[in-house]
Amino acid sequence: MRQSREVDLPYVKLEIAKGIASVEQKRAVIRGITDVLVTQLGRDPEYIFVVIDEVDTDNWGRKGKSLTELWSERDESQT
Amino acid sequence: MRQSREVDLPYVKLEIAKGIASVEQKRAVIRGITDVLVTQLGRDPEYIFVVIDEVDTDNWGRKGKSLTELWSERDESQT
Amino acid sequence: MRQSREVDLPYVKLEIAKGIASVEQKRAVIRGITDVLVTQLGRDPEYIFVVIDEVDTDNWGRKGKSLTELWSERDESQT
Amino acid sequence: MRQSREVDLPYVKLEIAKGIASVEQKRAVIRGITDVLVTQLGRDPEYIFVVIDEVDTDNWGRKGKSLTELWSERDESQT
Amino acid sequence: MRQSREVDLPYVKLEIAKGIASVEQKRAVIRGITDVLVTQLGRDPEYIFVVIDEVDTDNWGRKGKSLTELWSERDESQT
Amino acid sequence: MRQSREVDLPYVKLEIAKGIASVEQKRAVIRGITDVLVTQLGRDPEYIFVVIDEVDTDNWGRKGKSLTELWSERDESQT
Repeated sequence: MRQSREVDLPYVKLEIAKGIASVEQKRAVIRGITDVLVTQLGRDPEYIFVVIDEVDTDNWGRKGKSLTELWSERDESQT
Repeated sequence: MRQSREVDLPYVKLEIAKGIASVEQKRAVIRGITDVLVTQLGRDPEYIFVVIDEVDTDNWGRKGKSLTELWSERDESQT
Repeated sequence: MRQSREVDLPYVKLEIAKGIASVEQKRAVIRGITDVLVTQLGRDPEYIFVVIDEVDTDNWGRKGKSLTELWSERDESQT
Repeated sequence: MRQSREVDLPYVKLEIAKGIASVEQKRAVIRGITDVLVTQLGRDPEYIFVVIDEVDTDNWGRKGKSLTELWSERDESQT
Repeated sequence: MRQSREVDLPYVKLEIAKGIASVEQKRAVIRGITDVLVTQLGRDPEYIFVVIDEVDTDNWGRKGKSLTELWSERDESQT
Repeated sequence: MRQSREVDLPYVKLEIAKGIASVEQKRAVIRGITDVLVTQLGRDPEYIFVVIDEVDTDNWGRKGKSLTELWSERDESQT
């Protein structure tokens, strides 16, 4: 595999639900993902770039429902 | 076409201007898009994942102008 | 909700595993998602824009494994 | 190269740190990027679409640190 | 506006239809967009990062149709 | 922080230059990033989803030049 640490620029975009990560957790995630790319791909951390996008639970869907709906169903089923 | 409902994970990202959709409309969109993927591609809704990104009208451009500018020009031309 | 059919431009990005959809299925998906946005959000189809990204199974991971690995495990467990 | 100004729809997504651009600067960026695509690729501005995503400095990392951390280190080193 | 040229890292993603830009045109686009960010936002080109995604015309839709369909309809209507 | 392992679905998109990672390296990256999210955010790996996008060096720019140009300049300067 080509060694080209100096010029390329790995970019990571992470999407998580809003409200599940503290500032400290987000820092740990940025550090952890950067370490993976340094260790596994030999990239230069100077140019490793991580963006976290925190998505509102009304704007996030799975199984055809918003996360707001899914969480509310789950909370009800747990009572 | 390969049938592999169990493991893959269709991901949909939708970008719309902020302020054009209510919470109910966003739920209907998540449900509708999920149905399309279930019906047309035979995917398992358990793993269909929809994210809606609502973009501020200052941050959205067409024809070289922001949506704020475009809407304001249109409102003026309608008076 | 604001009616602004003329100027905004909903954008949809869909990521699916490579090899699970035929050209006809992709056309049906583009048509179906566009219909959802017309019906639910009242957007003008002229400016509804759908991009499908077909991801190689080596480049797609879930549960910490690539789709290639997951499919091969599943195929083995089915024999 | 194919001339097809009428139907395709270049889409540009720009990610910048939150707080580095005023509304006027963002308008200038939208205008400038649109001009580049008109001039260099011959596209129709009617369908050139630019989205600016302003990322919170806690959610943006380089060198394994958040922008908040990097800016604070730099501010300290400058005193 | 905050001056922070040293540490942030503007990222631009450009999506165009496959086959509309030559290698030279893509270089001109990368150069032109970088210039806009340097001029308008005062960013350091060292960390300005542009990615061009060329989308297959079967995977790109507008008005509920793929670009392949739209181009073929247009070609027919022009004969 | 809310514990909601069951329903949300972290999504990670990684962009790297084409040709810098082998299939094995990509598997190690998927595994490593998934581990970070399990360890730091307590997410369920069942729903952690990683996509790697390998970008052609003609389509990737930094400092206003394509990666192809940058690599070729560097190779010349090293002789």
